Amino acid sequence: MASIFSKIVAGEIPCYKVAEDEKNFAFLDINPMTPGHTLVIPKKEVDYLFDLSDEDYTSLQLFAKRVALAQKAALPCARIAEAVLGMEVPHAHIHLVPIQTEADLNFRNHISLPADEMASIAARIAAEMK
Amino acid sequence: MASIFSKIVAGEIPCYKVAEDEKNFAFLDINPMTPGHTLVIPKKEVDYLFDLSDEDYTSLQLFAKRVALAQKAALPCARIAEAVLGMEVPHAHIHLVPIQTEADLNFRNHISLPADEMASIAARIAAEMK
Repeated sequence: MASIFSKIVAGEIPCYKVAEDEKNFAFLDINPMTPGHTLVIPKKEVDYLFDLSDEDYTSLQLFAKRVALAQKAALPCARIAEAVLGMEVPHAHIHLVPIQTEADLNFRNHISLPADEMASIAARIAAEMK
Repeated sequence: MASIFSKIVAGEIPCYKVAEDEKNFAFLDINPMTPGHTLVIPKKEVDYLFDLSDEDYTSLQLFAKRVALAQKAALPCARIAEAVLGMEVPHAHIHLVPIQTEADLNFRNHISLPADEMASIAARIAAEMK
């Protein structure tokens, strides 16, 4: 069965899309730790990040770097934190979280933002993609 | 002034070294979240991960993948989690943390292990490096 993330890539489940390229896809986390919290995934459904081939892993990490630079340009934050845990959805994903302090990266803290604000944040990040 | 991590790379401050290559260095976190918690850094002193050139960033991420695969082979764990926050030391570093559950990646939980156990863990990970 396709993972929930594969269904998002296929457009079967809606998302606030930030960017995509041939192999990778980025969209807002629906329960963000901070505004602009983004998930970066390979389109290929691989459970564990480090099981990706060197080529696909490099493609994903360079794509994540582009997204992180766009987030930093688009949003007020000190920097973009990165985290990969990946036990709740069996499809490798990198969390990119705009933070002001280290305490902002907290998997127990989640906020909910109105749909129009989520759409605006996704558009602002997308506009900064190089 | 050289960062504490540059002093570790230079051998001026001791560490439990796991691996190194031309551009990168890996050593055990002295206050680990779990046994085998490793820091992976570029030898070049750059504060913010995403300020690395694409070439140096790719080198660091592929080196981190090799370390993560070695940790998983050497230690009892479900997988290796990755985190980059980097506000406490101005020298980019990737945390690679062996976890059984997502709750194991917790920046407020730290353990202390005897020196001989730290040395043994570092040697076991080093022996699995491909």
